[in-house]
Amino acid sequence: MSFHRMMYLGKNKFSIRITPRHLYEIFNKEQNDLEVCIIIGVPPGVELAAATSYTPNFDELKFASVLLNNLKVTKFKNFFIPADTEIVMHGRITKKLAEEGPFVDLTGTMDIERQQPVFECDTLYFRNNPFFRVIVPGGLEHRILMGVPQEPRIYKIISNAVPGIKNVCLTEGGCCWLHGIVSIKKRKEGDGKNAILAALAAHPSMKRVVVVDEDIDIFNPLDVEWALATRFQPDRDLIIVPNARGSSLDPSSDLEKHTTAKYGLDATRPLDKDYKMFKKTELPLNLNLKDYFK
Amino acid sequence: MSFHRMMYLGKNKFSIRITPRHLYEIFNKEQNDLEVCIIIGVPPGVELAAATSYTPNFDELKFASVLLNNLKVTKFKNFFIPADTEIVMHGRITKKLAEEGPFVDLTGTMDIERQQPVFECDTLYFRNNPFFRVIVPGGLEHRILMGVPQEPRIYKIISNAVPGIKNVCLTEGGCCWLHGIVSIKKRKEGDGKNAILAALAAHPSMKRVVVVDEDIDIFNPLDVEWALATRFQPDRDLIIVPNARGSSLDPSSDLEKHTTAKYGLDATRPLDKDYKMFKKTELPLNLNLKDYFK
Amino acid sequence: MSFHRMMYLGKNKFSIRITPRHLYEIFNKEQNDLEVCIIIGVPPGVELAAATSYTPNFDELKFASVLLNNLKVTKFKNFFIPADTEIVMHGRITKKLAEEGPFVDLTGTMDIERQQPVFECDTLYFRNNPFFRVIVPGGLEHRILMGVPQEPRIYKIISNAVPGIKNVCLTEGGCCWLHGIVSIKKRKEGDGKNAILAALAAHPSMKRVVVVDEDIDIFNPLDVEWALATRFQPDRDLIIVPNARGSSLDPSSDLEKHTTAKYGLDATRPLDKDYKMFKKTELPLNLNLKDYFK
Amino acid sequence: MSFHRMMYLGKNKFSIRITPRHLYEIFNKEQNDLEVCIIIGVPPGVELAAATSYTPNFDELKFASVLLNNLKVTKFKNFFIPADTEIVMHGRITKKLAEEGPFVDLTGTMDIERQQPVFECDTLYFRNNPFFRVIVPGGLEHRILMGVPQEPRIYKIISNAVPGIKNVCLTEGGCCWLHGIVSIKKRKEGDGKNAILAALAAHPSMKRVVVVDEDIDIFNPLDVEWALATRFQPDRDLIIVPNARGSSLDPSSDLEKHTTAKYGLDATRPLDKDYKMFKKTELPLNLNLKDYFK
Amino acid sequence: MSFHRMMYLGKNKFSIRITPRHLYEIFNKEQNDLEVCIIIGVPPGVELAAATSYTPNFDELKFASVLLNNLKVTKFKNFFIPADTEIVMHGRITKKLAEEGPFVDLTGTMDIERQQPVFECDTLYFRNNPFFRVIVPGGLEHRILMGVPQEPRIYKIISNAVPGIKNVCLTEGGCCWLHGIVSIKKRKEGDGKNAILAALAAHPSMKRVVVVDEDIDIFNPLDVEWALATRFQPDRDLIIVPNARGSSLDPSSDLEKHTTAKYGLDATRPLDKDYKMFKKTELPLNLNLKDYFK
Amino acid sequence: MSFHRMMYLGKNKFSIRITPRHLYEIFNKEQNDLEVCIIIGVPPGVELAAATSYTPNFDELKFASVLLNNLKVTKFKNFFIPADTEIVMHGRITKKLAEEGPFVDLTGTMDIERQQPVFECDTLYFRNNPFFRVIVPGGLEHRILMGVPQEPRIYKIISNAVPGIKNVCLTEGGCCWLHGIVSIKKRKEGDGKNAILAALAAHPSMKRVVVVDEDIDIFNPLDVEWALATRFQPDRDLIIVPNARGSSLDPSSDLEKHTTAKYGLDATRPLDKDYKMFKKTELPLNLNLKDYFK
Repeated sequence: MSFHRMMYLGKNKFSIRITPRHLYEIFNKEQNDLEVCIIIGVPPGVELAAATSYTPNFDELKFASVLLNNLKVTKFKNFFIPADTEIVMHGRITKKLAEEGPFVDLTGTMDIERQQPVFECDTLYFRNNPFFRVIVPGGLEHRILMGVPQEPRIYKIISNAVPGIKNVCLTEGGCCWLHGIVSIKKRKEGDGKNAILAALAAHPSMKRVVVVDEDIDIFNPLDVEWALATRFQPDRDLIIVPNARGSSLDPSSDLEKHTTAKYGLDATRPLDKDYKMFKKTELPLNLNLKDYFK
Repeated sequence: MSFHRMMYLGKNKFSIRITPRHLYEIFNKEQNDLEVCIIIGVPPGVELAAATSYTPNFDELKFASVLLNNLKVTKFKNFFIPADTEIVMHGRITKKLAEEGPFVDLTGTMDIERQQPVFECDTLYFRNNPFFRVIVPGGLEHRILMGVPQEPRIYKIISNAVPGIKNVCLTEGGCCWLHGIVSIKKRKEGDGKNAILAALAAHPSMKRVVVVDEDIDIFNPLDVEWALATRFQPDRDLIIVPNARGSSLDPSSDLEKHTTAKYGLDATRPLDKDYKMFKKTELPLNLNLKDYFK
Repeated sequence: MSFHRMMYLGKNKFSIRITPRHLYEIFNKEQNDLEVCIIIGVPPGVELAAATSYTPNFDELKFASVLLNNLKVTKFKNFFIPADTEIVMHGRITKKLAEEGPFVDLTGTMDIERQQPVFECDTLYFRNNPFFRVIVPGGLEHRILMGVPQEPRIYKIISNAVPGIKNVCLTEGGCCWLHGIVSIKKRKEGDGKNAILAALAAHPSMKRVVVVDEDIDIFNPLDVEWALATRFQPDRDLIIVPNARGSSLDPSSDLEKHTTAKYGLDATRPLDKDYKMFKKTELPLNLNLKDYFK
Repeated sequence: MSFHRMMYLGKNKFSIRITPRHLYEIFNKEQNDLEVCIIIGVPPGVELAAATSYTPNFDELKFASVLLNNLKVTKFKNFFIPADTEIVMHGRITKKLAEEGPFVDLTGTMDIERQQPVFECDTLYFRNNPFFRVIVPGGLEHRILMGVPQEPRIYKIISNAVPGIKNVCLTEGGCCWLHGIVSIKKRKEGDGKNAILAALAAHPSMKRVVVVDEDIDIFNPLDVEWALATRFQPDRDLIIVPNARGSSLDPSSDLEKHTTAKYGLDATRPLDKDYKMFKKTELPLNLNLKDYFK
Repeated sequence: MSFHRMMYLGKNKFSIRITPRHLYEIFNKEQNDLEVCIIIGVPPGVELAAATSYTPNFDELKFASVLLNNLKVTKFKNFFIPADTEIVMHGRITKKLAEEGPFVDLTGTMDIERQQPVFECDTLYFRNNPFFRVIVPGGLEHRILMGVPQEPRIYKIISNAVPGIKNVCLTEGGCCWLHGIVSIKKRKEGDGKNAILAALAAHPSMKRVVVVDEDIDIFNPLDVEWALATRFQPDRDLIIVPNARGSSLDPSSDLEKHTTAKYGLDATRPLDKDYKMFKKTELPLNLNLKDYFK
Repeated sequence: MSFHRMMYLGKNKFSIRITPRHLYEIFNKEQNDLEVCIIIGVPPGVELAAATSYTPNFDELKFASVLLNNLKVTKFKNFFIPADTEIVMHGRITKKLAEEGPFVDLTGTMDIERQQPVFECDTLYFRNNPFFRVIVPGGLEHRILMGVPQEPRIYKIISNAVPGIKNVCLTEGGCCWLHGIVSIKKRKEGDGKNAILAALAAHPSMKRVVVVDEDIDIFNPLDVEWALATRFQPDRDLIIVPNARGSSLDPSSDLEKHTTAKYGLDATRPLDKDYKMFKKTELPLNLNLKDYFK
């Protein structure tokens, strides 16, 4: 299972974007049209599983079944599909090419137009009053389906370098792809820098990573910014790595050489200073003014 | 008019925090107790005017009147106060000292305890069913009343160096004091760097400034982060200024030497590349699927 | 009033250099020839006032009058001019263009040739035995008339960031335009860096600024160099700002992108060391050897 | 199984160095003396397996069996040991402490003296004419047993960031612990930098890593130096990461904060230049001068 | 005397590579063919002398005589040559040009083809059963004959800046030309940096220099690497000099501008720390285990 | 011959400053008082010769004789002295010590007080109406006598690295000791950087060096500053060398570790741009206005 952008060409035809991953290999090996099932409208757990890229023999439906604590699957022609799928398009990816795009990309900027294979829908099945599920390109759903499946992999690699790692996320502001946040329980002074190195290595598309202490909420951009404001010094806590290989989606990168400059900001507090200086005060929940003015 | 942190000591006594500004000078010149009026519960425009620090002879009530498009003022003993004030405490700041604090500071971390003058309330006036207005220290109101009045001053100084300046804000994540955002209409390639220099010079407490193009919403942290993700390269667009004088409120700074490292990030797009590459696509408002499947 | 380079073309014609400032706007709005008075030979205070660029409605004659402690002005056709002007050329700037240049520029290097409007002199007035005043392009007078009027503006902006500022100058060696010196009474360790930021922001054409203590004579290049030799360490006290917008007059800058790298040198002494180590010894005025050998 | 430095104290007693790993945990949980078998003189494959640190439940004997393509194991008291072990000391690690050291450490410099537990040998078994196997501290065997087991782990982590990785080694000159070499088949320009990040993250004790192309022999220091001499430019190809967490064995590191500065050198050739410029010429094996002078 | 690469063209003709040094000047002054003697097969001391480039009037044969503690010289036509030369080719360098190359260069990479003068051999002399001596281009002999004669010159210049200099070598891995090692007896903390500056100045083709303490064997690459591993910190001990003039033999340099980035690594131990921390332990020569188990 | 600071103690006694050079060694070898001749009032060439420090057996009087194109020398007791010396103090440097100082040092700051040997004058000779020659410490004469003799030595070392060197000076603003200027005829782009390295290596007390083209007057600080203003970019043309060994006279250096940060500024114009852009225009000597208005 995988996600593919499709553009309606008229009648039963769509151009379909296929990037060089698993379907690309299968399609290129096939001499004739490739029989496929396009399924639209499935439980979110199935989408999440389909978004996970692991090894070619990874079974996305089984993984969805684990995520959803059981998934009803049905045999449909030569395919297994979720039983509750709203719409199914059965057809063939042909060797014909057509214009695909322009569409908005993950970053919200316009992707270029390309020649892509044509999918021909032979039969269209749907439930009564089906809903037609669309993922708006460049929208938050697009971003999350790209980023969330990366996070456990990144977590695992960082844990090798920094056992005290607590959490990882790819931020919405960074298109869930280019910017990451890592929180750690810091044990030795250099842990923050090692976490930066490991995070940039774990997800090669990551351009910026911020490392924070475990008392920071990495899903709250204001909390992360607060950590930078009160625990970070740019001359001491910043690493810049020029001329590295980055994401081709970032328009600020060198699109000819495919290089970018990456950076990591270590916003963990110094261990040789008193934690009290850096602690965010918790406000008492019930301010009862009667206690003050009797 | 100015804001002062007060701590209830019992009976009619409060310790009152007075930093070295205008009231501090008036109080120090006075040999005896200083007669004052503490007003609680006034229109927001009055608070904003009181938060503005300009020259000593600046008339905050007049400025409030401009902001509010007329303000009813009444004579109360030796003072002019807003007519609709909820609570008024008339009394004297004495030469006695008492513990003040610990309170939370602008950054959300704990301020130290200090010996401060004692205010003695002689008479307490209030409206029927008055509301008692409190600004929680370190909360958002505290931050905004500190930061917002700085922004026009910063704007004016930057406009000298970069005529194309569009807007300025001090961000909530940066405690409305330590981090700034500047948007400009970029005319020449180096405008972003000049805006960085001018912003850091205009507000000496600013530790970080991000400069963005005019199509970025500087009040939306995710939009600013998006500009960094797609228009910024850290080896080319970052300036670091170590050993500068910064805010004494930042616990990560060198609190003995009063120095900090400041930095500016120029997230404006390069003028020698096509704007289309960097343009955030606007999604059409009405996606009508019927247009697609007829 | 403003200064304009003019090249004699023969007969009553001159090409006249008009850069995009106030006259440029007036001339462009005018459909026909623009009537002007060229005055040659006026008191230095008038020249200084004319060299001051402020807002379009700034009245240079009034300012001259302040500087000179009264200036006799006379009505001449549609213009007010200083009463004692040596030579007056009354005429029109026409819409015809002619070659202007090559002339030496502020930096002493050759400016390019340009097509510029033609001034036609209709009447020539002069006093008996008038002197003909010429400002040699690239000479010291040219430089001073450019630089000196900038200094009070720079001073004012720096004073916002560093209240202890003492003096500012644009140096002759830096063409009174590209290099500045600032002296301050240093109060906190980072004041020198803040003065650098403010100076570079205040005068965007400034490429280098040196900040010194108040015991240094900023008009004496050797004294400033002495401060660098004995109070400056390049790894600790130097700020470099690449890719900023600078002066188009600097041939070492990137003339296509209009960018330059700016730098600031903080030659103030460290406050945490004894001043005696850094104090320039005053020599006693009267060395009387008889006191030594009795 | 694990390696432990032992110092003979006289009679049947040895002090034994136990660092905070698996045995340390077992020993600390035990209230009484811990029964152990010290085995001396085993096949190299057993030593290599014992040097591999993985998870606590990793079975070193099984791994040795794989490496040696079968290993004869025998039951000895409560332990399984290799059947051909030369010398076995059966005894107890007691709760008594004694001086251990000074010994030479991995770096060849002197380790400090410590109080360590005392091992008491109860029975000594040996084969006829046994050989007594000693690993000289700080010698090459010590280094290799430390470094070699790290290499596959490092390889695996780098392969996540740079699929074109070819080989990894920890160099003898870097004590098989502090310096690494990585060879890659470079596909995009930034691959070398990404390999640096991944290598430094994979082995947190690594202070320096050099990345080379696949035509370089990473086990030959002269070949690696040749790559640096002909393919590396320090202003473009070097990354420095200050204040990171490094090895406590490096005497040049900050031994109080446990921080070090790490660096990576990318000595891969630029892809946008002709490979011929960078290719090491192979000399023909048989120079037959008769071919030249006929 | 000087070395020249020759390529056999057939019959009695060779193209001969003449770089712009002494022979080049002599040849260019000469209107006609230049009579020369090519000598092949001489004592190593003569080769070393011929490889030494000093002033034009330096007498290589005399220097060889000193090195060899007397050298038998014989008069041969208009030349003095070593008496025991194996082969002598007497002839003329003509004004004709021919292809020379491609040959392997000092770095082991391919040199370009060039048009070079043609040498015509008029008479060939040789001893009975002469050996034909060839220096393989890019081989170790080539490198040593280039590098070794530079070392005393480099030593002398460094000794001006750092009197405690002990030894200098150009390393084999750096082609005996691009990389140098300097050992010093360090007296003051900054001596290592000054040795770097002096070494890079003394041999302008040097791209990298490592400075070590006198207890390091500069001819052993592993010992030098050990010094880097245990005494060097890249953020404190590294100097990079971009845009300097370097060797045209380095393919990684900017071959159009003839610039390169040079670097120096100061691997000397800090004087303010105990030498014991950094001392390489000498292992006792005779480990007598009987001393341990009595 | 050498210069020594002397402080009058009363009667016939002076304390005399002897730094660790030639006289220091002679005095330390001597068991008894050392007989010396103090000469006051000699031709400037003799002073310059005495200021030159070369090898211990360098004969300063002979060198003076060369400089002065013959010098009349006379035998005086055990010494040769210039025949025209104004005042001669014959006496002994004793093993007694006394306070010497405080005096002003080369930098114009106060030197510390020290215990130094006592000179006792036994006989005082002088010419009729002799003049008493004093070199004011820290004055220009002091500086020049320190700096000028260094310049030829610096020139010679730089010429090894940059054959196109034209001139060298140690600037008055840099106390004729800490700052140098080098002018070169630039042949290849990197020549300026190599000249920086060589200059800093040649005179280890040099903290700053500026390299300029041959059309710049290195003795004119304004001309050198002009070269910096129009030919220098700080991000491209500046080298900083931290933690090097520098002069103990510079109060900004680390006086405990004897280290300083040095820097070099390459203000030579880029060879790949047109010289016309960087050429300082020569003004015509006779501006004849009649040529303009006929």
